[in-house]
Amino acid sequence: MACALNSSGKYSSLLRTTPASWGRYAWSIGREDPRRAIHALKAGIALTLVSLLYILEPLFKGIGENAMWAVTTVVVVLEFTAGATICKRLNRGLGTIMAGSLAFLIELVAVKSGKVFRAFFVASAVFLIGFAATYLRFFPKIKKNYDYGVVIFLLTFNLITVSSFRQEEVVPLARDRLSTIAIGCAICMFMSLLVLPNWSGQNLHNCTVRKFDGLAKSIVACVDEYFREQEKDDEVLERQEARASIQIGYRAVLDSKSSDESLAHYASWEPRHSMHYYSYPSQKYVKLGSVLRHFACTIAALHGCLESEIQTPPHVRSLFRDPCTRVAREVAKVLQELAVSVRSHRRCAPDVLSDHLHEALQDLNSPIRSQPRLFLGSKHARATNSRMLMELNSAKNTAASRATLPSFKTDTTSLVERKSTKTDQPAAERNERTMLRPTLSKIAVTSLEFSEALPFAAFASLLVEMVVRLELVIEEVKNLESAANFREYSSHDHLVIDVASKEKMRHATNGDHPVSAAAK
Amino acid sequence: MACALNSSGKYSSLLRTTPASWGRYAWSIGREDPRRAIHALKAGIALTLVSLLYILEPLFKGIGENAMWAVTTVVVVLEFTAGATICKRLNRGLGTIMAGSLAFLIELVAVKSGKVFRAFFVASAVFLIGFAATYLRFFPKIKKNYDYGVVIFLLTFNLITVSSFRQEEVVPLARDRLSTIAIGCAICMFMSLLVLPNWSGQNLHNCTVRKFDGLAKSIVACVDEYFREQEKDDEVLERQEARASIQIGYRAVLDSKSSDESLAHYASWEPRHSMHYYSYPSQKYVKLGSVLRHFACTIAALHGCLESEIQTPPHVRSLFRDPCTRVAREVAKVLQELAVSVRSHRRCAPDVLSDHLHEALQDLNSPIRSQPRLFLGSKHARATNSRMLMELNSAKNTAASRATLPSFKTDTTSLVERKSTKTDQPAAERNERTMLRPTLSKIAVTSLEFSEALPFAAFASLLVEMVVRLELVIEEVKNLESAANFREYSSHDHLVIDVASKEKMRHATNGDHPVSAAAK
Repeated sequence: MACALNSSGKYSSLLRTTPASWGRYAWSIGREDPRRAIHALKAGIALTLVSLLYILEPLFKGIGENAMWAVTTVVVVLEFTAGATICKRLNRGLGTIMAGSLAFLIELVAVKSGKVFRAFFVASAVFLIGFAATYLRFFPKIKKNYDYGVVIFLLTFNLITVSSFRQEEVVPLARDRLSTIAIGCAICMFMSLLVLPNWSGQNLHNCTVRKFDGLAKSIVACVDEYFREQEKDDEVLERQEARASIQIGYRAVLDSKSSDESLAHYASWEPRHSMHYYSYPSQKYVKLGSVLRHFACTIAALHGCLESEIQTPPHVRSLFRDPCTRVAREVAKVLQELAVSVRSHRRCAPDVLSDHLHEALQDLNSPIRSQPRLFLGSKHARATNSRMLMELNSAKNTAASRATLPSFKTDTTSLVERKSTKTDQPAAERNERTMLRPTLSKIAVTSLEFSEALPFAAFASLLVEMVVRLELVIEEVKNLESAANFREYSSHDHLVIDVASKEKMRHATNGDHPVSAAAK
Repeated sequence: MACALNSSGKYSSLLRTTPASWGRYAWSIGREDPRRAIHALKAGIALTLVSLLYILEPLFKGIGENAMWAVTTVVVVLEFTAGATICKRLNRGLGTIMAGSLAFLIELVAVKSGKVFRAFFVASAVFLIGFAATYLRFFPKIKKNYDYGVVIFLLTFNLITVSSFRQEEVVPLARDRLSTIAIGCAICMFMSLLVLPNWSGQNLHNCTVRKFDGLAKSIVACVDEYFREQEKDDEVLERQEARASIQIGYRAVLDSKSSDESLAHYASWEPRHSMHYYSYPSQKYVKLGSVLRHFACTIAALHGCLESEIQTPPHVRSLFRDPCTRVAREVAKVLQELAVSVRSHRRCAPDVLSDHLHEALQDLNSPIRSQPRLFLGSKHARATNSRMLMELNSAKNTAASRATLPSFKTDTTSLVERKSTKTDQPAAERNERTMLRPTLSKIAVTSLEFSEALPFAAFASLLVEMVVRLELVIEEVKNLESAANFREYSSHDHLVIDVASKEKMRHATNGDHPVSAAAK
């Protein structure tokens, strides 16, 4: 649910317009996730059912005014997912029972004393319990799991203790109240668990699958954008949109911590609801989410290379376009395969980290190796050994005629052009440039020239780093698979994946020994 | 509050031990943030006060049984910070009033009809309102700001509508209830706003200051760790601890989104509570938090270089230790200065991004430029121009005797040694190595040799990138300063900062023209 909410933000500007657009907005919320409309229907039905306790004569005779407590319970306890409802119900039940017991104990002491002492005793009990319960809510473990229970405990305790001061018969009162709360809880449980249930565990599972897809899209978009040709004027807007779209995937992953944890917390209360699980491994999903956030940081850094102030000139970048793009596409493909296998609750192929990826890495290394001058950078390298310097210079002058590898010195013109077209950069970055300029001596210029090679090195290094972290992701997916008892990998599962036929061939030949790797 | 909670996690293992350690644990929670104990005391007092409505005879005569609603209100509405209390009180008030009005309208229609029609009418009203209100809670804007209000609306509406079915006099009932809720709210507001108040805005402010400090520590720890000497056996544990400590600062920033947003949301409800502000710029804090998260991503990537599988050999790194460390320390120093100025509500120095930092950047560029062979990497660079290749090789052979710059070829032995001592690396990374090894041809080895220079290039590039992003942070701090009406910068403020005396000199001489930059 939390994952899906973000995308509806774009409609929020509609909020200030006509009733008709309000209607369209409300419709869009439901169309985005039809379970929302279903949940609202379920809540309406549950409330009507519980109101019947009061409205229908025979039922009212049995329960009476206390039916109100059942209504309150339904309003407060019925949540979107089954896990959240169970968690709240248990909290409410536990809180009420403990508060009732404690209030009963205090009643036993208070009942034997005089009016004044009793008032004093009740007031101090309220103060002490109020203090202790509020303080308890700051304990991290309590806050995480039982916050609502403590509130209900405090509420019930105060209501019973204070009202016992004027009512003699507090035990029947507490008993009736408890039984109506139980009725309310029963209606909630019925609606939540048996009528079209929404499982927090399923939500967590779907969010995890979406993360893989989002990361794959971010990587491909980022690398495509990095190696895109110099834009024409009419493409600037399009380019800005493309750049904005890079963020969506990895940002969602980076920001997923709290929603993941609450879904996992609720999921841990849910009974086994699927044939796939022995028990629901919610903590494995949280762990996987944490590894994916780690992975997303690399994409964020890759995106940083794209947005960086110091840029490698485009025609130099274009030398590395094919290998870099290939590595990125292979990584994205692996992520998509993982998404497919997690989505369909089956183990991923043992060779999911394919030879293709290793080949792509090798292909990336070769052109970097074959272009040493790129990383040599400046003509004016001040090596302490003067002979080496001379030879390096002569080497460079000899090579100056090669069209495929113009020196960085000639690139500064194109760099200046690029800078002048970059009108959309933040003011701070422009300031940086203005502040640097006055101090740019000859040395500073050559060192800046050199620095232009650094970002590409960073870009390539981050791509390699990404592959390493991808292995950690696969490791964690495998942990999840065995904990969640996914079904075994079999080669013909791959028919569902939309990959090149060459890919399918590979899986068909390698897929005969799935157990050895999957059983790991 | 949310920021402080994390650090108490270490005590949670105590939870399963003796009552004495429970006591110590409870004590530690309070010592960590004494406002927690104060808040618990305030809650106890508020509950006792509201109970007196019921206990004291003269008060009870005026209010009667409805005093229970005041108790409920105090339990539910009183929150840790003033903003949260105000937000809940308004939600509760609005929800109750709207529910009361709607129930009154329905009552007007229902009262004229027969018993059966009335029952039918009430039941369908409950269903429709239940459906609509639950559906409304899925609207992102409603969910963010008014979720609690909608729950209270639904609760109150159901209670009034359903009970009106059996009670004729529903208007006095609603009026009494509303007045007792108002009493409860008044007690909460008194306790929350006037007795030792905790401001969400202040919490947000403190969290922001802590973020700067945490990031500065992370940067310094990360760079120190990167250039640390090869460890002895007894230092492995210490090193692991140092590595773990790097994460704390930037992780806290990366995970701060949801807590920032809820604090800012509550802060936006708070009245002006300080002479520093015209109005509290909570959205500026959120924006600054977002820029700091962006900045923290760079540190995460820097940390990635440290943890990377492919490492530049230590003695090559040590060539760049001083300039890199200097850049990192200058960045950390700027962050600490920002922390000090934000903490003390004054504008930062106009020259906070000092010449020292620019000098440090220049110093970093020089050694990189003077070591071209480092980035040339392999002896076997296959330049298409064979003459260039020859000259490069001769240059390398000539320089081979230089002790300060051993070639990468000789470093592979030290690399292998390093790998064999790295027993604490995750299994996944070891697998990666095992999987790569069989395919390592001659070409692969040389390309790997080259790759060892890449991570350092990435490291240096990220350091430079960090400086660029630091400018964005400063820009955003300046936006915050002018929005929050911080007092002007004056040079003698710098006496509070613990920097080298040279630094103080610089500020004393440059600090005469603070207005020109600060007024920007």
